[in-house]
Amino acid sequence: MPEFIRLIQPDQAFKIWMGAVQNVISDIEEIETIHALYRVTANPVISNDFLPAFDRANVDGFAVRAMDTHGASESLPAYFKGKGEVPMGSAPVFNIKEGEAGLIHTGGMIPAGADAVVMLEYTQSLQNGEIEVMKPVAAGENVLFKGEDVKPGEEIIEAGVRLRPEEIGGLLALGITNIMVKRIPRVGILSSGDEIIPPGETPKPGQVRDINSYTLGTIIEPTGGTPVYYGILPDVPDLLEKKLAEALDCTDMVLVTAGSSASSRDFTTNVIAKMGKPGVLVHGINIKPGKPTILAVCQGKPVIGMPGNPVSAVVIAKLFVQPMVKKIGGLSTFPHQLTLKARLTANISSQAGRDDYIPVRIIASDEGYLAEPIFYKSNLIFTLASADGLLHIPANANGIAADEFVDILFLRD
Amino acid sequence: MPEFIRLIQPDQAFKIWMGAVQNVISDIEEIETIHALYRVTANPVISNDFLPAFDRANVDGFAVRAMDTHGASESLPAYFKGKGEVPMGSAPVFNIKEGEAGLIHTGGMIPAGADAVVMLEYTQSLQNGEIEVMKPVAAGENVLFKGEDVKPGEEIIEAGVRLRPEEIGGLLALGITNIMVKRIPRVGILSSGDEIIPPGETPKPGQVRDINSYTLGTIIEPTGGTPVYYGILPDVPDLLEKKLAEALDCTDMVLVTAGSSASSRDFTTNVIAKMGKPGVLVHGINIKPGKPTILAVCQGKPVIGMPGNPVSAVVIAKLFVQPMVKKIGGLSTFPHQLTLKARLTANISSQAGRDDYIPVRIIASDEGYLAEPIFYKSNLIFTLASADGLLHIPANANGIAADEFVDILFLRD
Repeated sequence: MPEFIRLIQPDQAFKIWMGAVQNVISDIEEIETIHALYRVTANPVISNDFLPAFDRANVDGFAVRAMDTHGASESLPAYFKGKGEVPMGSAPVFNIKEGEAGLIHTGGMIPAGADAVVMLEYTQSLQNGEIEVMKPVAAGENVLFKGEDVKPGEEIIEAGVRLRPEEIGGLLALGITNIMVKRIPRVGILSSGDEIIPPGETPKPGQVRDINSYTLGTIIEPTGGTPVYYGILPDVPDLLEKKLAEALDCTDMVLVTAGSSASSRDFTTNVIAKMGKPGVLVHGINIKPGKPTILAVCQGKPVIGMPGNPVSAVVIAKLFVQPMVKKIGGLSTFPHQLTLKARLTANISSQAGRDDYIPVRIIASDEGYLAEPIFYKSNLIFTLASADGLLHIPANANGIAADEFVDILFLRD
Repeated sequence: MPEFIRLIQPDQAFKIWMGAVQNVISDIEEIETIHALYRVTANPVISNDFLPAFDRANVDGFAVRAMDTHGASESLPAYFKGKGEVPMGSAPVFNIKEGEAGLIHTGGMIPAGADAVVMLEYTQSLQNGEIEVMKPVAAGENVLFKGEDVKPGEEIIEAGVRLRPEEIGGLLALGITNIMVKRIPRVGILSSGDEIIPPGETPKPGQVRDINSYTLGTIIEPTGGTPVYYGILPDVPDLLEKKLAEALDCTDMVLVTAGSSASSRDFTTNVIAKMGKPGVLVHGINIKPGKPTILAVCQGKPVIGMPGNPVSAVVIAKLFVQPMVKKIGGLSTFPHQLTLKARLTANISSQAGRDDYIPVRIIASDEGYLAEPIFYKSNLIFTLASADGLLHIPANANGIAADEFVDILFLRD
C-alpha cells in the first residue's frame, strides 16, 4: 500500500527545508528609488549627507537666544526687537543678537545667533515692532539640529530589507534616487496530470482545469517573486524530468503541482529525486490539509511538490512557499505573521499530534470579531473563496471549544 | 493667533469624510483573470458551469455500489470483481454493476453505477483479480458530486470584492478567463512649499527634498490606487488653485501635501475651499501625530490636506487615505485592520481626550513579541524607517503601563 513512511511535524519540516538552502539571489541591480517599493536592499545603505541639512524650526514662532527668555512669564514678559521674518526655502538675511527675535515658520532655517524657538502661542507682536515673550525656552528647544536625524556615514538601512514607503521617503530625503537591490527571484511552476487542461479550454469528461498554477503564481507575486509558468505536462516521467530540469536551470525555485493521487505523488517524488543532491528531504507533513507535500533541494535550489487539493495548496503556500521565496530573495528577516483575534462560534475537534488549519469566515459583531469555521470536503476550491482566514490548531491540542478566543491567520490583505 | 477652531475626534472625522463621498469609480474594464490580482469586481460573478463537472473520487480506492459493501469487515470481507482502472483525464470505459469494483484515483471520474469509493487502505487486490473490501461505505462516501462546489447560475463572487489568489483560482476552475473589474482610481498628489525641491536636486540653505509625495504614492499603490504626481508648487495661492483644479479634473481623489506651518495650512485650506461644494469638512483632528489634517470633498471627489511632518503623513495615510482609496475603488467591504499582540517595554503617557499613535520597534523574545516605544522629535523621517508598527492609545486613556499587552498596528506587510 503506498503510504507516507514517516510524516514530519510542520515546524521540523520547515527547519529542515529552510536550513538546506544556503544560496540566495546574488545578482543585484540598480533601480530608481521611486520604483523600489517592496524590493530588497542588496547592501547596507549609507547616508551621504546631513538630515536635516541645517538647523530647522520645529514649530511656528520666534527664533531667539534662549538665555534672553530667562524668567519670562505672562505677568512679566520679556521684550524683543523684531528682526523680520525668515523666508521658507532660503537662508535668513539676518542674525539674532541679544534681545532680538526673528519670526520663523515650521521648517524654516534658524538664523545664526539663535538657539531656540519660542512658540507663537507664547508671544505677542506689538504695534511698535517689539515682540512680547511670555514663556522661557531652553537652549535647543523647538529646534531640529543639523544631522540630528542622520549624519554622513551612518548606516540608514541594512542589507536585506524589504523597502516600504517609509524607507523610500527616507532615501529620497537624502537625495538617494537610485538604489542597489537584489534581483527578484524567478519561481518556476509546473503542472503535472493527465486530467489537467488549461483554464481557457473546455474540459471533456474526466478533465479539470488547472487552478493551482495561477493560485500559486498570484501568491508568489506579491511575496516578491516572479512566477514563470511551465505549463501542463501529462504524467509521463521522462517529460516531467526534462521540463523540471529546464525549470531548475532557468529559475531560482520550482513548484511542481501534481494530482492528489498516491500514484502521481510517487511519480513526482521520483522525478524530483533525480534532479540532484540533496534531493527529497521531506515527503509527507503531519498537517491537515497539506499532508502530501514534498520538500526538496536540488542543485542548491528549493523544489516543492505541492498537494493537488487547492485548499491544501494555499495552506502550504502560506506556510512554506512564501517564507522560502523571501529567503531566496535575500530578505534578512521575515515579517512577523499577523493574526486577527476572534471568538470561535463552534466547537472544532482535531486529531492530537497533527497541526490543523481550518478555514474560517470572519464576522464583525458588537463584541468584536467572530470566527465561524467552514466545514468542507476536500477539493472544493470555493471553500477558500468564502474564507477570510485560517485557524491553526496546534499538534498538542485535540480541538478548541466554542467561545474561546483564537488567533486567525488572515487571508485578506 | 492662528489655531484650529475645533479639533474633531478621529473616528468622527472619518465618518464625516467617508459619509460625504458617494461617488465611487463607475468605469469598468474587462481584463484577463490571471492578471486580476487585487482588482475589484465590477459585478457579481455568476457561475456558468458545474464544479466539479462530473462525480469525482475524493480518495484513491475502488468505486463500488455502497450497498454491496454492507456488513464488510476485516474478519468478514466483501468480495468484488475487479473491472479495471479508471484513467485520469477521461471517462471510465466500464460501468459498475452489482458486486463489481473499479480502481480509481483521487480526481478520477466515478463510473456509472457506482455511488461510493472504498479507500485503498481498506481493500486488498487478490491474485485472481478479485478485490477484498474490509469496511463498508455509505452511498456518496468519498465522492465529490457534480455541482457540489458550484452550480450554473450561482453567484460565486460578489461585486466590490478585491480578488485574491483564492478567487482567481476559483474563476479559472470555471473557465472564466476574463473578468469585469473597476478601473483603478487615480490619486493626484500635489506638493506645495517654497522650501521643497525634487529629491534629485541638491538643496540650497533652507531647502528640503520632497519626501512625502513618494511616501504617499507608494502607500497608495499597493492599496489599489495609481498615484499621479503633480510636482512641487511654491506657496502662491493662484498657482496651487490652478494645479489643484487640474488635478481634480483628471483624477478621482487629490492629496495636497504642504508645509507644517500654520500659514501654509491656512493657505492650503483656503485654496481647497474654493474647489467646490461641500468643501472643507474637517480642519484639525484630535490626533497625535496628524493634527493639522484637512478633510474635504470638492465636486464629489475627496481632497485631503496632509500634514507636512513625514511621521504624521504616514499615520494619516494609514487611517484616512487608504480606506478612502478603497472606497472610491469600489470595495464593498474593507479589510479588517490586523494587529500584532505584543508586550510594552516602557510606560507611555498620553494626553487624555486625544488619540495618540506611538511608533514602536517589535522585538521577538522567548515570551512573545515586545513593543519598544520610539521616542522621537517631530519631523524625523528615519523614526519611521526604524519603526515596525504603531501603538494606538485611545482618547479615553492617559497612557499605558509597561508590561501591558498591546495591539500593534503593524507597518511591515
